Amino acid sequence: MDLAYIKELHQFYQKELLEDTLPFWFPRSIDQKYGGYLLMRDADGSLIDDDKAVWIQGRAAWLLATLYNTVEKKQAWLDGAAAGIDFLLNHCFDPAGKMYFHMQRDGTPIRMRRYFFSETFAVIALAAYAKATQDARMAEKARELFTRCLEYAKGERLMTPKFEPTRPAKAIGIPMIMINTAQQLRETIGDPRCDQLIQDWIAEIERDFVKEDIRCVMEQVAPDGSIIDHIDGRTLNPGHAIEGAWFILHEARYRSNKHYQQLGCKMLDYMWERGWDKTYGGILYFLDVYGKPVQEYWQDMKFWWPQNEALIATLLAYTLTGDQKYKTWHEDLRQYTENYFHDKEHGEWYGYLHRDGSLAQTAKGNLFKGPFHLPRQQWYCMRLLSALVTAN
Amino acid sequence: MDLAYIKELHQFYQKELLEDTLPFWFPRSIDQKYGGYLLMRDADGSLIDDDKAVWIQGRAAWLLATLYNTVEKKQAWLDGAAAGIDFLLNHCFDPAGKMYFHMQRDGTPIRMRRYFFSETFAVIALAAYAKATQDARMAEKARELFTRCLEYAKGERLMTPKFEPTRPAKAIGIPMIMINTAQQLRETIGDPRCDQLIQDWIAEIERDFVKEDIRCVMEQVAPDGSIIDHIDGRTLNPGHAIEGAWFILHEARYRSNKHYQQLGCKMLDYMWERGWDKTYGGILYFLDVYGKPVQEYWQDMKFWWPQNEALIATLLAYTLTGDQKYKTWHEDLRQYTENYFHDKEHGEWYGYLHRDGSLAQTAKGNLFKGPFHLPRQQWYCMRLLSALVTAN
Repeated sequence: MDLAYIKELHQFYQKELLEDTLPFWFPRSIDQKYGGYLLMRDADGSLIDDDKAVWIQGRAAWLLATLYNTVEKKQAWLDGAAAGIDFLLNHCFDPAGKMYFHMQRDGTPIRMRRYFFSETFAVIALAAYAKATQDARMAEKARELFTRCLEYAKGERLMTPKFEPTRPAKAIGIPMIMINTAQQLRETIGDPRCDQLIQDWIAEIERDFVKEDIRCVMEQVAPDGSIIDHIDGRTLNPGHAIEGAWFILHEARYRSNKHYQQLGCKMLDYMWERGWDKTYGGILYFLDVYGKPVQEYWQDMKFWWPQNEALIATLLAYTLTGDQKYKTWHEDLRQYTENYFHDKEHGEWYGYLHRDGSLAQTAKGNLFKGPFHLPRQQWYCMRLLSALVTAN
Repeated sequence: MDLAYIKELHQFYQKELLEDTLPFWFPRSIDQKYGGYLLMRDADGSLIDDDKAVWIQGRAAWLLATLYNTVEKKQAWLDGAAAGIDFLLNHCFDPAGKMYFHMQRDGTPIRMRRYFFSETFAVIALAAYAKATQDARMAEKARELFTRCLEYAKGERLMTPKFEPTRPAKAIGIPMIMINTAQQLRETIGDPRCDQLIQDWIAEIERDFVKEDIRCVMEQVAPDGSIIDHIDGRTLNPGHAIEGAWFILHEARYRSNKHYQQLGCKMLDYMWERGWDKTYGGILYFLDVYGKPVQEYWQDMKFWWPQNEALIATLLAYTLTGDQKYKTWHEDLRQYTENYFHDKEHGEWYGYLHRDGSLAQTAKGNLFKGPFHLPRQQWYCMRLLSALVTAN
């Protein structure tokens, strides 16, 4: 491994995180009046909308508590995390305990959705905040909500289904989000269930979603792991599969487990081959496993988040294996994102580029984008590199 | 009016409809085994998926029955319409009478959605087929289903809501689709309710959605017609508003009503000003009323259907008013669509272009695209021009 490169890269990610991304969002986004965060912002930081997306409220609280736990004991970060936790706990649950998706600024609910991602992001926020505050009640809340997520994931707690039972399918997103949630829980407050659960979810991904014969990670499959040969079943999401790859590489590193390392690298290899745009650079959004048209029409756009997930995956793969291929991929992607996504005037990244890298629209925050994928990537890379610098 | 131009254009639309668009879809798309149509096709006509989208099943049956009623008494068209009607009636209703959205080829349901567009397209299909066959039972079914649509539209028959009641909103899509459905019903089998209903819906659009002060047609508003200053409330859909404009211009022509003519032209003017892409041509998909970022990221793409709706609106406006501006708009758009959307090798149009006119993806048919907006446009323009040729 190239130590000078590791050191330089560490400086780069630390500076980008602390001097570019974070100042874009904080402190101005903390809502002093109602708690939570005002995150729907245009490129220059001006507020587009004062609504609050529950996913992003949880993710921002997670980020601030995690920075407090792992980077520096800044009171402003802890207070910022508290604002988000208060908003989540006081407003974002319906009377039956299901979390909303979209809130008015004052905490009045606007929309519930039929999945449980609001819950998973609240788990990691509560767990990180519990660690930061050493508050046992918060840790208990995190574990209880994680239990509820497990019930949803296993189908023991039912949500109104979107589809008839005609063509049963399962999505890689469920084991993926659960792996990451369990990893966070384990790393912050500890939970004796997590090791076994993570192992089982990785086994499910390997068994049912990773297809060696066609070098592919499927986004959804039939319950027995077979490919559903219809438009939805054939649709691949390379950036998402690569995110799954790094969750598994993270586990490989945590357990020093070579099999997980090979599995994560394989998933990254397969989906980089398919998802990297050889013409313009960057990771494409959707592809059809057999090259047919997908249902979406914006499938060749470049979104910020797949690039961030691929930056983590390639750096993890490089630092675990020392394989120069992954360093090249990481550098190609880092260069690409610096050139096209990074807004050097106002800080942070644009969210949405056309395939050719031109800007499709300027929002830095909306219902789905906020301070998460980019700062998580910078934080994760910084910490990974920091450990290597220290170890060498 | 330029009669030579009218004649030439009439020939153009007739040829495109009968020798280019229809042969792409029929007869190969009629499912001889299960009824209905196999419409999810790639650019070259190869089948991408044998699923059936209920919207498009209804729309295709409407098209074939309408061609039989208005163009030529071809048995193949009538038989083709029958295949769709049978599939709709035998498979696409749940036991409570609500229509599904997405079916397996054999008629097993895959998905229900929480709106009633499947129903409105089935109404126009049934009504056109009732006229073609002179079957009173079919006419009765069309009227009963229209009554159900009225109950949904008025909120007398409830569907599971997607949103909490926090921020009530109404969409222009409801009065629009109901105007068009009622116009079809009136023109095929007659229905004494339609004139008054159409008048009321046009009045609602004029009162609540058309904003003279900012020269705009809103896509959604608060129940009192005020603009909801959040991302969703600010989002405009110029092609959709222009479709609404031509439904009203159609009514203006039917009733020789100058007020409706002015209203339709005003809506077209406002949304052409906003929606026509002065850089690349074509109608953009979404815009924010105040120029802020919208939630969607593909908002600057060019879809086939807004162009088709704008072709009808500009031609109606030109033939009603004689204003050269509308002829210019129509010709600019016709040239643009011929250059970029029309697939001269395999027939029909592509559905999805990038803003700059380059092809985003190749599907000619999927869950949302099928033989409707393009052939309806060609049929409508052909019939409008034919009436003018005859009258002059």
